[in-house]
Amino acid sequence: MTGTNKNITSIALDAMGGDHGPKVTIPAALKAISNVEVAVSLVGDQAAIQTELDKYPKPPEHLINIVPSEGIVQEDESPALAYRTKPKASVFVSAATVKMGKAVGFVSMGSTGASIAAATVVYGTLKGIDRGALGGPVVGYAPNTVIIDLGTNVDTKAGLLVDFAALGNVMSKLIYQNDNPRIALLSVGSEKGKGNSLVKETTELFNAVDLNFIGNIEPNDLPNGKAEVVICDGFVGNVILKLTEGLGSAIVDHIHKALGDTQASKKLSKEIFEKMNILEAFGGGPLLGVKGLAIVGHGSSGVDAVANAIGTAKYVIDTGLIEAQQSELDRIRIAIKN
Amino acid sequence: MTGTNKNITSIALDAMGGDHGPKVTIPAALKAISNVEVAVSLVGDQAAIQTELDKYPKPPEHLINIVPSEGIVQEDESPALAYRTKPKASVFVSAATVKMGKAVGFVSMGSTGASIAAATVVYGTLKGIDRGALGGPVVGYAPNTVIIDLGTNVDTKAGLLVDFAALGNVMSKLIYQNDNPRIALLSVGSEKGKGNSLVKETTELFNAVDLNFIGNIEPNDLPNGKAEVVICDGFVGNVILKLTEGLGSAIVDHIHKALGDTQASKKLSKEIFEKMNILEAFGGGPLLGVKGLAIVGHGSSGVDAVANAIGTAKYVIDTGLIEAQQSELDRIRIAIKN
Repeated sequence: MTGTNKNITSIALDAMGGDHGPKVTIPAALKAISNVEVAVSLVGDQAAIQTELDKYPKPPEHLINIVPSEGIVQEDESPALAYRTKPKASVFVSAATVKMGKAVGFVSMGSTGASIAAATVVYGTLKGIDRGALGGPVVGYAPNTVIIDLGTNVDTKAGLLVDFAALGNVMSKLIYQNDNPRIALLSVGSEKGKGNSLVKETTELFNAVDLNFIGNIEPNDLPNGKAEVVICDGFVGNVILKLTEGLGSAIVDHIHKALGDTQASKKLSKEIFEKMNILEAFGGGPLLGVKGLAIVGHGSSGVDAVANAIGTAKYVIDTGLIEAQQSELDRIRIAIKN
Repeated sequence: MTGTNKNITSIALDAMGGDHGPKVTIPAALKAISNVEVAVSLVGDQAAIQTELDKYPKPPEHLINIVPSEGIVQEDESPALAYRTKPKASVFVSAATVKMGKAVGFVSMGSTGASIAAATVVYGTLKGIDRGALGGPVVGYAPNTVIIDLGTNVDTKAGLLVDFAALGNVMSKLIYQNDNPRIALLSVGSEKGKGNSLVKETTELFNAVDLNFIGNIEPNDLPNGKAEVVICDGFVGNVILKLTEGLGSAIVDHIHKALGDTQASKKLSKEIFEKMNILEAFGGGPLLGVKGLAIVGHGSSGVDAVANAIGTAKYVIDTGLIEAQQSELDRIRIAIKN
């Protein structure tokens, strides 16, 4: 645990996480420290990390250190069970490194469920929140629009959706520099209150709070940037995230077949792929509603995406988002009570 | 009411429905009778219809007749209220024309809610079904995959989703000629039963019935045709339908900007647009769960789409889908009870 410097932001990286493990995370950490002013604690199997580190020029000692952990939580494991049976797994040790004050946040490309469990259990959640929420831009044609929740809470109630709006409001202000973000409920009709029972109940609650709530947004309008914060149940948000990715891949294949292997075809395909996978370009989004920073990334992330995620972690810390969430939640809830 | 022929299938067309009304529906009807062996009853304002008819060569008398109606149900009107205040509106008279045996089904591009109300109230629903369900292919990269429900039932329970599976099963067999359609539940994880509480409860019920249930399908897999029938709540289905359309439009704009006004660009844009708006290519889908045929189309449909919808109506009638639904529902429900 030597080598970190008090004056530089230190991020814990789950070096074992993601589809590729240290082969990707180690060069990504090295890339991150050369891109941004950040130190990285590499959490994982010491020997495996050292083997990868040895392939590259030795980084400055104060910018990289290894934090040993034991085991990995696999994608198909129950995160709750994993926490009981292997509490020293890389993602849990990553969160613990933050909790002990040795890093300001962690980044993991491993099991999303495990990252959420680690943040939820080790950091704790904000008052009234049971589980962190994932929020971020999904449709690259509206890169300034964050959608919350993207899959963490799949059976939400109206009050929780209003909490998400409060979290999204500060996220949009601090991370995306929107002064007065327009907040919309995702629904299947454009008129205020039109939709299922959850949309109707949530609309009632929104009427009581001081947020810039503009009513419903329909899914076909998501690419048009008509709101900066879009609120939905995590099941629906995850459908939006995954459908966008899936359609992106299908269309890229289509373009490739139609235009062949030309320069124009490759450029267009790459652009469209990035628009349909924008969260990956950020390297992942911060988990909202927990008492600490966790950047949850995509398992398939490559070196650039993981390096970006480390950069995103530093950026989010600098904005003060983590601290701002509880006070915004308090403000909104008082309005609902009164 | 003269001019129809006992030996030819007659379809009632809501001539006032859709964004363009008779200007589109009349040439579409004329196109349909020249494409397929079908007669069309044009339901709507007699003078407006005649004005449009007069612009074209006079069609054979036994293939086109006018059924007068009064008024239109607008997109933003409450369908239930409209049925009470203007029961002679074109969509209700269209359904009544079928109920009276003067046509075998109706086609409307007007308010989806009004079409569903017309079919539900005038035809009546199948035993145990409160409201018709919309099903059809959505992602053109998997044109053989129907998704049910696409927006009619936005607060569904597990039993209703199993009913949708029964309806989808006969639809897939009869309309898409799949011998043993694979039926999947749309969810946010691929393992059987993973998802929200609705998915979990529905999975339990599926275990009791004799359907080719293959577990969950994730939204990113929808373009890959891994199931022939995908079941979801109507809120989620409508999100899938509208997001696909919206992303299609955004990508077509993107391609146009990137490649300019070339032949290759136009061809590719058209192909992708059609893949992302496949339901429109069919002219609309049949409403499931009601005791009669209603083809519910897209308001923005042009002449070809409306003509296709009339062709689809005839095709669906010929398959026997309407009659097959109740017996399949009965078969499935007995299994759940036992």
